[in-house]
Amino acid sequence: MDDFEVSCKGLYRALNIREKYMKLAFQRFPTTPSQFLRKIEGEQWKLDENVLPVFTSPPKDGEDPFCTKDFPPSLGYVARMKDGVIFVYKDAASADKHQPLNHPGPELATFIDDMNFLIALISQGPTKTYTHRRLKFLMSKFNVHEMLNEMEEMKELKKNPHRDFYNCRKVDTHIHAAACMNQKHLLRFIKRSYRVDADRVVAVLKGKEVTMKELFASLNLHPYDLTVDSLDVHAGRQTFQRFDKFNAKYNPVGASELRDLYMKTENHIYGEYFATIIKEVASDLEDARYQYAEPRLSIYGCNPNEWTKLSGWFNKHRVFSPHLKWMIQVPRIYDIFRAKNFVPHFGKMLENIFLPVFQATIDPNSNPELSVFLKHVTGFDSVDDESKHSGHMFSTKSPKPEEWDIVKSPSYTYWIYYMYANIARLNQLRKERGMNTFQFRPHCGEAGAVTHLLACFMTADNISHGLNLKKSPVLQYLYYLAQVPIAMSPLSNNSLFLEYNKNPLLEFHKKGLVVSLSTDDPMQFHYTKEPLMEEYAIAAQVFKLSTCDMCEISRNSVLQSGLSNEEKVHFLGANYLKDGPEGNDIRKTNVAQIRMAYRYETHCYELNLIKEGVMAD
Amino acid sequence: MDDFEVSCKGLYRALNIREKYMKLAFQRFPTTPSQFLRKIEGEQWKLDENVLPVFTSPPKDGEDPFCTKDFPPSLGYVARMKDGVIFVYKDAASADKHQPLNHPGPELATFIDDMNFLIALISQGPTKTYTHRRLKFLMSKFNVHEMLNEMEEMKELKKNPHRDFYNCRKVDTHIHAAACMNQKHLLRFIKRSYRVDADRVVAVLKGKEVTMKELFASLNLHPYDLTVDSLDVHAGRQTFQRFDKFNAKYNPVGASELRDLYMKTENHIYGEYFATIIKEVASDLEDARYQYAEPRLSIYGCNPNEWTKLSGWFNKHRVFSPHLKWMIQVPRIYDIFRAKNFVPHFGKMLENIFLPVFQATIDPNSNPELSVFLKHVTGFDSVDDESKHSGHMFSTKSPKPEEWDIVKSPSYTYWIYYMYANIARLNQLRKERGMNTFQFRPHCGEAGAVTHLLACFMTADNISHGLNLKKSPVLQYLYYLAQVPIAMSPLSNNSLFLEYNKNPLLEFHKKGLVVSLSTDDPMQFHYTKEPLMEEYAIAAQVFKLSTCDMCEISRNSVLQSGLSNEEKVHFLGANYLKDGPEGNDIRKTNVAQIRMAYRYETHCYELNLIKEGVMAD
Repeated sequence: MDDFEVSCKGLYRALNIREKYMKLAFQRFPTTPSQFLRKIEGEQWKLDENVLPVFTSPPKDGEDPFCTKDFPPSLGYVARMKDGVIFVYKDAASADKHQPLNHPGPELATFIDDMNFLIALISQGPTKTYTHRRLKFLMSKFNVHEMLNEMEEMKELKKNPHRDFYNCRKVDTHIHAAACMNQKHLLRFIKRSYRVDADRVVAVLKGKEVTMKELFASLNLHPYDLTVDSLDVHAGRQTFQRFDKFNAKYNPVGASELRDLYMKTENHIYGEYFATIIKEVASDLEDARYQYAEPRLSIYGCNPNEWTKLSGWFNKHRVFSPHLKWMIQVPRIYDIFRAKNFVPHFGKMLENIFLPVFQATIDPNSNPELSVFLKHVTGFDSVDDESKHSGHMFSTKSPKPEEWDIVKSPSYTYWIYYMYANIARLNQLRKERGMNTFQFRPHCGEAGAVTHLLACFMTADNISHGLNLKKSPVLQYLYYLAQVPIAMSPLSNNSLFLEYNKNPLLEFHKKGLVVSLSTDDPMQFHYTKEPLMEEYAIAAQVFKLSTCDMCEISRNSVLQSGLSNEEKVHFLGANYLKDGPEGNDIRKTNVAQIRMAYRYETHCYELNLIKEGVMAD
Repeated sequence: MDDFEVSCKGLYRALNIREKYMKLAFQRFPTTPSQFLRKIEGEQWKLDENVLPVFTSPPKDGEDPFCTKDFPPSLGYVARMKDGVIFVYKDAASADKHQPLNHPGPELATFIDDMNFLIALISQGPTKTYTHRRLKFLMSKFNVHEMLNEMEEMKELKKNPHRDFYNCRKVDTHIHAAACMNQKHLLRFIKRSYRVDADRVVAVLKGKEVTMKELFASLNLHPYDLTVDSLDVHAGRQTFQRFDKFNAKYNPVGASELRDLYMKTENHIYGEYFATIIKEVASDLEDARYQYAEPRLSIYGCNPNEWTKLSGWFNKHRVFSPHLKWMIQVPRIYDIFRAKNFVPHFGKMLENIFLPVFQATIDPNSNPELSVFLKHVTGFDSVDDESKHSGHMFSTKSPKPEEWDIVKSPSYTYWIYYMYANIARLNQLRKERGMNTFQFRPHCGEAGAVTHLLACFMTADNISHGLNLKKSPVLQYLYYLAQVPIAMSPLSNNSLFLEYNKNPLLEFHKKGLVVSLSTDDPMQFHYTKEPLMEEYAIAAQVFKLSTCDMCEISRNSVLQSGLSNEEKVHFLGANYLKDGPEGNDIRKTNVAQIRMAYRYETHCYELNLIKEGVMAD
């Protein structure tokens, strides 16, 4: 076998691996590569609508998004964790015997095999050379396309009535709820709350109820004097390469009491202020009409009660907006909880995170508020500082989650695998019940080892950041071939990990990776009242993006998001699931068909090369 | 004499030259260098309030900014042009004999002498080396200051109540009225005007009055279909290094008819739409509360009537806002007018530009609307593509403006000198009458020869752009020593002349040059609803500016602007005219005193070196 064939066979198998894990969890794998894989295997490709994810449609006229009626009855099943994964059993008896219902999940041994294959592939000489050259070619090809067709693309857009960059839909695909307001908004809110609520009991300090006045007095502060400077939530030069300092910025005026009061769902006022702030942000998005956001709320896994509390907050304050799609973020802070003895082992954390969701899926009426909330949740995120190195290497010999009782955190890959395994089984169950499914959309490749990107290539519907794809041509090319969406936040990176003009966003976009723009934390990074527009404006200016580029990125963001099928049809056109120009409705997306054709032809050309390589002998 | 002394003596004389021409025209020369110059000369320095510029105060409560009463009576003087400069005579008889009243203006021969001295200085080896090294030192010194004092500066700002970057005043020091709205705003305005005024006669086409409906029909357009893309007023990659293409962007949909209708003061509807758009922009600034702008309106010098028409527009539509300070821009397009035989020679253009202003100053009641307008005008700008080379070299042998009758344009320096000479004499007369004076604030150093920056060092109160100071260490150092304000527009440069991350703004700011941020043309360059905030936000992100940096730049913008003394006292503090920490009121500016002290000490240190060098022998 020559080098070319070796590379193609490796890449072919890698694509097959991703396809398998995507299907298993009702996550997305695009049509075009799927068709090529079938062709290589000599099979007929056909669309399997059954493996598509399900997102909750927006409420129809008069429908109450918080309605707790009409949930299906309990299945009477039993959910129980074994080896870090929740299994569903017909009843307690079969649970005791571990005879689970047939919800296929990933097999650990196979997963490790697949993973090891990919680890070998990304450092295999010929494949590195091959992918490096293909990526270089993709870059040059786009530059040529641009030089030849830029004016034609612009002409198409100019002829396109009603639609321009301002009124094509864009989704902020990566934003943390606790930082979704900008610093000025938070400042105003704090001042306003003090004017209205100074004498309200808002917290308990050292066992004693205190009013807002007393709370601020205990901090030697008067909100009237507060400024954006003293609020001190904005990232600056001090936070570069200092994730720890960045995390401290979540505390207004450096006081965790204020974070608890204003940015938490759980506090003495039942997270009322936080809910109000989020609803104000949502109302700004509704006013802007064409902008949507996918805020993350935290589930820590420290306590099984967290879901009930969070969904209680969601329902109590009716935190719903058609412009928001909710995500759950799970911080990877096992070591902290274990050190404080909050959890006995890693398995308990996983159980706290997933068991309540399985239970609410089996019997929605057992926790109607949670069931309502889950309808509006579209996926899971995994978050923390990726530059922290765990020292652990995930293998078949790794302790099972229930055996992981040391204080040290398991590796990123270990975390990712167990989250994925649970989500996959959960989605099986939910799909069976006709409920919405969840996407796995972790933070990945912001820093740390390239193996993070490898783990997510296997398990994630799409990722946030992806900066480190710069470091691995094989993975970068695989992300391209499989069209894995990447939510990039160059302003966030600029404050934390990578200077703006070194950001690979432009390079990725040119090569044809599916990138979207997101804000991450407007409170820490942005200056204006429209953080997502600020993000687009700065990218447009620094990278000199054309309107077609910007509209393509906007379109990517809708595709990547957890917006429902109805919404996607409305925002992108009826054929949005199809690849190439056929799937694009320029009247809705303002993306030139020339661009779509270029992307499609280029993608087919690359896949075809692999087919040739694989079928050579 | 050693190299050091040579350099210092040259720089000393250069500063003296600038001081002389600033005083002559009631323009600003800062106290500190002035004190050093006096010290070198062994003289006592004292503040001469008589040479300060005069800006019209904002109207008091109930005062009408358009009031045409209470103008002083006519002086009965006669104004007449001689050798390109307007002189004022007691009467026609003394005019015929050229016995002007004593309004000292610059002497051409001396000016040329001074200019030639500076031309020699900027290419003198030892001075180049000296200034280059001083600038390098200033840069390193600031970096050290930053490393040592950044946290202390921040602490000062955090302790400063009520004031932060958002509520410290900032002035958009360089913005063209015809492009002061953003593209989306213009689009909305066009659509709205069509909905309301479709059947209104708005223009005359080929001698026939046409309604708006007919006008759009003649262009094969319907505003309902218009988008930002088809409007096509935004600069893109196509405009880089193409000032000609950029200028074409002023035409919406490429149609000069629409430019005439929406962005001109003179048309069939007397510039009503243009006035409305500007008033909407002003109202946005008023809502934002802390933002001001200095829009430029054009006087071409093609016709003596222009002033009357422009001021008629201003008064008719009552285009006044306390957040706007007006500037007059004069495009350097003599060659076009001469080629079309609109003017017989260059002198006539100068006469058309300046004579009406002299006349309205001598007898305000002769043209009350113009007199009202002039009260609100704060300065003159000179605009055009600086990269066009004229081939002419200004010297004592150059033809006088009345003799300049060829089609070719005179050089930049020639233009600048004659504008300055007229403004200087005009200010003398206006000061005498207790009227407001005008600053000369030309576009300078955006492109073209460094001699542009030399001419403006001699004549301009402050400049726009200044990019080319990068190319001449001597001039850059002189701009530093004399603290000549520079309105920079990195987003504009990014689309036209220089990529964002190569912009010298950060470097200039660090070295201590007085830079402000301005938008130039929001219609062409900006994306968001708050162009000035977008400009600040992008600079802050790309250059990683600290809050103190941003507030210092904001403060610079107020100082550079034509805001009145009352407003400056209100926005910067009572002592704003003093240099150093004494002149800074942190409660108003949010600039740390540590920063002010650093700037002041560093400036004195550099001036002191020159004093030592000059007084060495």
